[in-house]
Amino acid sequence: MIKKLTLIGVGLIGGSLARALRHAQVVNEVIGVGRNEASLELAKGLGVIDDYDTDPASAVAGADVVVLAVPLGEMKSVMQSIASYLGEKTILTDVGSAKGSVLADATEIFNGNIENVILGHPIAGTEKSGVEASFAELFQHRRVILTPHDKTSTEALKIVHDMWLACGAEVIEMSVEHHDEVLAATSHLPHMLAYALVDTLARMDDRKDIFDYAAGGFRDFTRIASSDPHMWHDISMANQVALVAVMKRFRADLDGLINAIEKGDSQFVKETFERAKNARDAFCEGK
Amino acid sequence: MIKKLTLIGVGLIGGSLARALRHAQVVNEVIGVGRNEASLELAKGLGVIDDYDTDPASAVAGADVVVLAVPLGEMKSVMQSIASYLGEKTILTDVGSAKGSVLADATEIFNGNIENVILGHPIAGTEKSGVEASFAELFQHRRVILTPHDKTSTEALKIVHDMWLACGAEVIEMSVEHHDEVLAATSHLPHMLAYALVDTLARMDDRKDIFDYAAGGFRDFTRIASSDPHMWHDISMANQVALVAVMKRFRADLDGLINAIEKGDSQFVKETFERAKNARDAFCEGK
Repeated sequence: MIKKLTLIGVGLIGGSLARALRHAQVVNEVIGVGRNEASLELAKGLGVIDDYDTDPASAVAGADVVVLAVPLGEMKSVMQSIASYLGEKTILTDVGSAKGSVLADATEIFNGNIENVILGHPIAGTEKSGVEASFAELFQHRRVILTPHDKTSTEALKIVHDMWLACGAEVIEMSVEHHDEVLAATSHLPHMLAYALVDTLARMDDRKDIFDYAAGGFRDFTRIASSDPHMWHDISMANQVALVAVMKRFRADLDGLINAIEKGDSQFVKETFERAKNARDAFCEGK
Repeated sequence: MIKKLTLIGVGLIGGSLARALRHAQVVNEVIGVGRNEASLELAKGLGVIDDYDTDPASAVAGADVVVLAVPLGEMKSVMQSIASYLGEKTILTDVGSAKGSVLADATEIFNGNIENVILGHPIAGTEKSGVEASFAELFQHRRVILTPHDKTSTEALKIVHDMWLACGAEVIEMSVEHHDEVLAATSHLPHMLAYALVDTLARMDDRKDIFDYAAGGFRDFTRIASSDPHMWHDISMANQVALVAVMKRFRADLDGLINAIEKGDSQFVKETFERAKNARDAFCEGK
């Protein structure tokens, strides 16, 4: 049982976590923190949080668990604002889509005392945002990746692990580096390609015709280019190293394909498309 | 009224065209041509064609309209096989996804006598293939692009135009070059990116984890990588020039984005994502 949970950032993810924990009756009190008082008032009215505080420093006093559910670009400043006020046994966790940068910031801010810093990433979300879109079932049967490190406290890790299990999630542990590489490849890279593709087309002279003749496949392919640009800016900056590495790898492969089409290398082109189709079909069968 | 229509290639597109024309009662007789007699027998049994012939040369005799609905990679050899047998007034049309290469082949094969060669591209299809998947409504409210050229006969163009109108399609005319550029950007480039992305990931060392942690966005983004590799090989070869041009343009833009992320150029990244989101949202509103 978590006696007091302080939730910094009460949006879709944070709000859904609070709802799920309350629904599972594994938390006594949830204090929400944010800058927008109207939104916090709404969260309280919806029964997502018990109360709220606009000052993170006072809100974390006496908390068993503090959850950072703010955009990646705000993680560092929020950690700085609460560092001196966290209890010795308070567990700090987050829900960010990149982990290396958050761990580096935490290490710096807490002078290496990161035994109770247990970073996590629930792979869940909807196209909506805000506490009004939150719901207790968001994490059911979804994966949550926790990224323990050398100094991780076993007890603290178990508490965060159990917290997500109580939400109905499947909890997996892997290293920070592996998480960032896997997410760069499967999630961050596709978003970069979708944004880049739509932007390339939007800046072409005949863009009107181009968008006019785009059909269903294009709509599916570019859906993720309608994602929140600020959130994806933050992710691309936070996961810079792994993302740039996989983008360069993709670019080299794309160069190979361009070259093959230009030279009329039928065999290369056919083999590439066949490998991709087989991998994609296998991926879908596995799901 | 088309008295005799010879349909070379009785699959999803060809079969649906025959069904639609019969349904609209604008054709008297449809003769199917193919290499697979069992499939032609099935098409006859389904009432898609009146009869069939495995020899294209004899099948085109006396035809008012010959429709080439074979893969792009077979267009040239089929035209060669029928060139000496087409009537002087017979109209030749096609349904290929690229037009420049087909026109170039036709110009060569018919020694420049291409007055009655009216190339077209119905922007329609499903994930299924084969005559058993064909249906009369496939082209309703879908766009069909016709690509008249300098020598095009006005009468022949009108007959092909009316043929597609009878199928319920919206018929648009544009130049061969413009067609190939627009389709390269909106359809062929996204397919290349989807194939290249899935292939890049499938060849990474941690591909098992990568596909394991891929979520819904990835599934949408890569759906088109499950398309028929042979068809897309043919398209990439047939539309080589326009496709390579737009792929290089995309690669240059991708280089810019990689560079910006690597340098931490927040403004560039944010602006790119915002432009793309706005363009994509506007595209969806317009549909």
